[in-house]
Amino acid sequence: MKPTPNSRELAPLLAFGAHPDDIEFACGGVVARETRAGRTAHFVVCSGGEAASHGSPEQRAIEAEKSAKILGATLEFLVLDGDARLEMRAEHAMKLARIIRVVRPGIILAPSLVENQHPDHPKLGRLVRDAARLARYGGVEELREHAAHAIDLLLHYAVTDEAEPKDMTPLLIDISGGEVMALWTAAMAAHASQSATRDYQQLQLTRAKLHGLKAGVEYSIPLFSSDPIVLDSLVQLGRGARSF
Amino acid sequence: MKPTPNSRELAPLLAFGAHPDDIEFACGGVVARETRAGRTAHFVVCSGGEAASHGSPEQRAIEAEKSAKILGATLEFLVLDGDARLEMRAEHAMKLARIIRVVRPGIILAPSLVENQHPDHPKLGRLVRDAARLARYGGVEELREHAAHAIDLLLHYAVTDEAEPKDMTPLLIDISGGEVMALWTAAMAAHASQSATRDYQQLQLTRAKLHGLKAGVEYSIPLFSSDPIVLDSLVQLGRGARSF
Amino acid sequence: MKPTPNSRELAPLLAFGAHPDDIEFACGGVVARETRAGRTAHFVVCSGGEAASHGSPEQRAIEAEKSAKILGATLEFLVLDGDARLEMRAEHAMKLARIIRVVRPGIILAPSLVENQHPDHPKLGRLVRDAARLARYGGVEELREHAAHAIDLLLHYAVTDEAEPKDMTPLLIDISGGEVMALWTAAMAAHASQSATRDYQQLQLTRAKLHGLKAGVEYSIPLFSSDPIVLDSLVQLGRGARSF
Amino acid sequence: MKPTPNSRELAPLLAFGAHPDDIEFACGGVVARETRAGRTAHFVVCSGGEAASHGSPEQRAIEAEKSAKILGATLEFLVLDGDARLEMRAEHAMKLARIIRVVRPGIILAPSLVENQHPDHPKLGRLVRDAARLARYGGVEELREHAAHAIDLLLHYAVTDEAEPKDMTPLLIDISGGEVMALWTAAMAAHASQSATRDYQQLQLTRAKLHGLKAGVEYSIPLFSSDPIVLDSLVQLGRGARSF
Amino acid sequence: MKPTPNSRELAPLLAFGAHPDDIEFACGGVVARETRAGRTAHFVVCSGGEAASHGSPEQRAIEAEKSAKILGATLEFLVLDGDARLEMRAEHAMKLARIIRVVRPGIILAPSLVENQHPDHPKLGRLVRDAARLARYGGVEELREHAAHAIDLLLHYAVTDEAEPKDMTPLLIDISGGEVMALWTAAMAAHASQSATRDYQQLQLTRAKLHGLKAGVEYSIPLFSSDPIVLDSLVQLGRGARSF
Amino acid sequence: MKPTPNSRELAPLLAFGAHPDDIEFACGGVVARETRAGRTAHFVVCSGGEAASHGSPEQRAIEAEKSAKILGATLEFLVLDGDARLEMRAEHAMKLARIIRVVRPGIILAPSLVENQHPDHPKLGRLVRDAARLARYGGVEELREHAAHAIDLLLHYAVTDEAEPKDMTPLLIDISGGEVMALWTAAMAAHASQSATRDYQQLQLTRAKLHGLKAGVEYSIPLFSSDPIVLDSLVQLGRGARSF
Repeated sequence: MKPTPNSRELAPLLAFGAHPDDIEFACGGVVARETRAGRTAHFVVCSGGEAASHGSPEQRAIEAEKSAKILGATLEFLVLDGDARLEMRAEHAMKLARIIRVVRPGIILAPSLVENQHPDHPKLGRLVRDAARLARYGGVEELREHAAHAIDLLLHYAVTDEAEPKDMTPLLIDISGGEVMALWTAAMAAHASQSATRDYQQLQLTRAKLHGLKAGVEYSIPLFSSDPIVLDSLVQLGRGARSF
Repeated sequence: MKPTPNSRELAPLLAFGAHPDDIEFACGGVVARETRAGRTAHFVVCSGGEAASHGSPEQRAIEAEKSAKILGATLEFLVLDGDARLEMRAEHAMKLARIIRVVRPGIILAPSLVENQHPDHPKLGRLVRDAARLARYGGVEELREHAAHAIDLLLHYAVTDEAEPKDMTPLLIDISGGEVMALWTAAMAAHASQSATRDYQQLQLTRAKLHGLKAGVEYSIPLFSSDPIVLDSLVQLGRGARSF
Repeated sequence: MKPTPNSRELAPLLAFGAHPDDIEFACGGVVARETRAGRTAHFVVCSGGEAASHGSPEQRAIEAEKSAKILGATLEFLVLDGDARLEMRAEHAMKLARIIRVVRPGIILAPSLVENQHPDHPKLGRLVRDAARLARYGGVEELREHAAHAIDLLLHYAVTDEAEPKDMTPLLIDISGGEVMALWTAAMAAHASQSATRDYQQLQLTRAKLHGLKAGVEYSIPLFSSDPIVLDSLVQLGRGARSF
Repeated sequence: MKPTPNSRELAPLLAFGAHPDDIEFACGGVVARETRAGRTAHFVVCSGGEAASHGSPEQRAIEAEKSAKILGATLEFLVLDGDARLEMRAEHAMKLARIIRVVRPGIILAPSLVENQHPDHPKLGRLVRDAARLARYGGVEELREHAAHAIDLLLHYAVTDEAEPKDMTPLLIDISGGEVMALWTAAMAAHASQSATRDYQQLQLTRAKLHGLKAGVEYSIPLFSSDPIVLDSLVQLGRGARSF
Repeated sequence: MKPTPNSRELAPLLAFGAHPDDIEFACGGVVARETRAGRTAHFVVCSGGEAASHGSPEQRAIEAEKSAKILGATLEFLVLDGDARLEMRAEHAMKLARIIRVVRPGIILAPSLVENQHPDHPKLGRLVRDAARLARYGGVEELREHAAHAIDLLLHYAVTDEAEPKDMTPLLIDISGGEVMALWTAAMAAHASQSATRDYQQLQLTRAKLHGLKAGVEYSIPLFSSDPIVLDSLVQLGRGARSF
Repeated sequence: MKPTPNSRELAPLLAFGAHPDDIEFACGGVVARETRAGRTAHFVVCSGGEAASHGSPEQRAIEAEKSAKILGATLEFLVLDGDARLEMRAEHAMKLARIIRVVRPGIILAPSLVENQHPDHPKLGRLVRDAARLARYGGVEELREHAAHAIDLLLHYAVTDEAEPKDMTPLLIDISGGEVMALWTAAMAAHASQSATRDYQQLQLTRAKLHGLKAGVEYSIPLFSSDPIVLDSLVQLGRGARSF
């Protein structure tokens, strides 16, 4: 009944982003690591990023496609209320749930729920969390077309330092190693329009360096589970980060 | 430099308890699961349990030996200040660190740090946490006899429901399955002197049942890491508990 | 000016649920205890439960009526946005406030505000909390038909373990004793359509057993007040739960 | 087995203070209310207050005796490490546990555990909490002289605003009414040596006024239980504070 | 690039309130202090206060104008969903962001985000927080008319004691001194219709007295920043409040 | 009565460290900034750092002297229980309070109280916090030699990322600018014996870079006040950090 480790390894990764570059900047390294290991990955971007100071939606769509490709992921746009206009609507959660039933992922990546960040981020995080529940309820009318699906794990990513939740144990994913770092850096660089004014890329690499130093590796990216994690044995666990 | 998964699997499990029955009641099922899988386990009990309403220290030592044996673990007593008298002393942490250097475990189990429980529990939890640091510092005079040792992970167990930390993501270890449950129940029953007045065993089985229901398995035991967990890949992770 | 203990005892209990079985599963034992003691109880169910994997709305309405009757409560349906579709709308709070003014309860029971549960639960909890304020504001146009009403206490219930708030002192209501437990169990069993797939009933009885063990009684159910509790004297207080 | 409401009403109140005026300033109004209602009260003061800027220990002992008498309480001094010198020692908890076994109280009052206040306060709060456990353990050698005793409830008081715990539901005790307020004010005034430099009395009355405004009464004092509260029925509960 | 201290001193203060009297009651003293020091202040009131038990919207508008004038501030009404009907809508945040771009303030004052208060308060607080972000994003269509503007600091005020956030360091603004206190008191008194039933004014003065006692001054008002505060040097900092 | 801004600017800075390099690594940049601005600074190092994997106490004392000198600070050693052996003793707090009375600082810097770091750090942080209270109590026998002294502000520093408190608003001190950064880097490099094995310096520069990116400056260091901060006006405040 419960998925065997093997089926879990093969289950696709599904990542949701509020803007065209969120997934890549926040956790592109993790995606690269997983796709390199043979997992398929799919990105769902929920706005055209039209409220940004730079870059037209058309330009950003091209950049997003290019960036996802570098990471080995496919990408679709699912526009909800528009950039900087996202609201908590039940119908949004339904649309996200529908995608979950279609993609049938093992792990979902979504923005963290920390409130004090871009308003679209925690809202999308909550909508995805709710959608992951709806996807496994049998009686939802709009979702009947696709069979119910229960995911293995919902992991939250943080687009900035402040968006890292304070009351969850971080899972630090080791992304060290030339290929993964090179892919991540290239994926961020693909969002050329966003690199003009502020150095998001520098922020992310500095964060990954800091998390890497804590983890005793070169670079790492933190993810957060708001649900308890079920393990068959302690052997599954990695190490604790306590290098200083 | 960092331990390979293989070496980690083989590294012994080291569990610390403030009283002769704490380890078994709080997480005996996890120990059974690990020893069944081929890992060695060693228990360090830090008082004779002489303040309990029932059972002499002699009787309790015999029960503890028997119980550890059922779980496949070895056991030693390391008396510090005595039952219900434990104090935060640096020399205690040194003694615990010395044992860590001798046993050289991958994973350590220790009581949770939640304050509102038997006063010895959070104190021992803190002492073990400090000891795990001391064990890897090269310059500590009293520890020079044994080579410095860095553990993989310190996991906290909760002797009661209230002792479960509220700001850490629980790791629910699946202990379902006849053999492990039978061994755990037998290990608890081996503490015969403690079963006269209150039903600790019923408490633990009820807790494990509740955590099992959440995890979508029959029985499970929660453990807690106060350090971030370092993972090489998402494949290592299990499932999230969200069955209701 | 402040209600005498006597008037408070007689004031009705008003319970809100997002789905037809929420009140009964989460705190049916408390309701039974209060109605046995002579208090009237009224349930307001805010969706037909149509998103559940099993049971048609018609079937569930019949089950809910039967279950409420067993507990000695009356029941009404107040459909808002529909099951799994609830949104935070001011007009919903107005509708709930209107019912509060009509029923004029002393104590209100509503779902907890913990976010990580069925999305309808914390939303309804917030709406009820807001409604309890609106019910005592004199100037609200839509509510003018009924005199303003200030409740004594809003208590939150938790449908699952995870829904128990972590930063409020639990109030453990002792529901031990044959009649109350029998009524609660029968009320849960009355929701026959919901018992096919998952064992909600077993979850609730295991939770009540665990809370009972902590409280030093057979079974108990936790409730949570987000407001401070005003007492005339310490004599009103019960005991603290610290049995282990 | 569990104490009947009647026996609980008659059980004495036992209050612990780190300095000669702590109990009176923090919760003298509650003590007056209880003794007026026929309950006996006993104060244990754990230092001579010799580190204060004003007042000799001899003077302060006289003031404390006078103040306790006004509130209807008896008083004893139990000097531990001295004022501003209190340490967490197991032998202190043993001494406090011995007094608990002798007085056999229903309710204990002790300082809150909030760290950022006078260093003696949270330490005494922790020692009392531990002592309340030791008092009911049957096997503690030093306590054998007196029968084990389980209290009903440990309530923490806050000497200042900052000492009020943030993660517990406050219990606001209504102390309005001429006699109780007059007794409390007189009890604070009895600590004449402490009134010269800073207006502690004004602080306490301002706090009680503020808590009263919240509670919808004239004056109230907050107390905090770190254990869940066990209730036989909702009738025992008072009102929620939500006056604004 | 970063504003010089001088330009910051001159930047206007912009305060948002959900009801006609919220700003004045919660932090009128701070506004008076700033306008006395030569800063301009502007109030935006987001409902007519029509749900209050007393006072018509027309009456309240006159009172609000009068009160703002006493504090040296200008005032505008921006009606969103109406009193007790506020909802989290992206278009509201846009409207607030437009005002921010027009007024171009250094510091913004907005209600705290604590949930358990009048439902309009935390909603407006969140909308203002989001608006302060939108105001500096270059690409937002509706805001194109006015140049993007980045504020220096968003500070939250608390209308009641319970609305003070628990996980932020309070900034206690000293408002002692005859003129400021007299202006604040007069500004509160100007809301004559709201003084009939409950003593809000007494609540606020009691709170300010208590915060003053903590700060070692006569009266002070707490404000809260949810963002870290950037300082050029420690000389900018005041004192810590630790008078008892 | 309250110190004028002018006297506060001139008051010395007093920093406490558990080991010879803690102050410099955690907040050397802040010290450099303050001494460059004309403030005197004094370091108190509470162990010889003899438990470190590298560097003899003699060597480390020389390095510490050199490092303090680079930052413009004087330094003294006050050995308490020894490195990795610090205990919470009242007599330690007395010794620290005596130094506070002698140095008479405006601002004190001490390690953060976060538990999960080197065991000596939070213990020293607590001892310093207690000492700052003792220093202003008039009646403490051992301290009579020196006049009582009340500091302006106690600020906590974090030696690592994990040691940053989660429930206090960070104060980000801008340390950008060639001279300060050069002095800080040189001060860290002066601890040559500690640079062999782990890159503490890289950790600190990465942290300061990350905090700088958040603050919109090049480099910044976070400090934390556990007491509310008293301000005469909002003009004293800097900007909020919200650059992404």
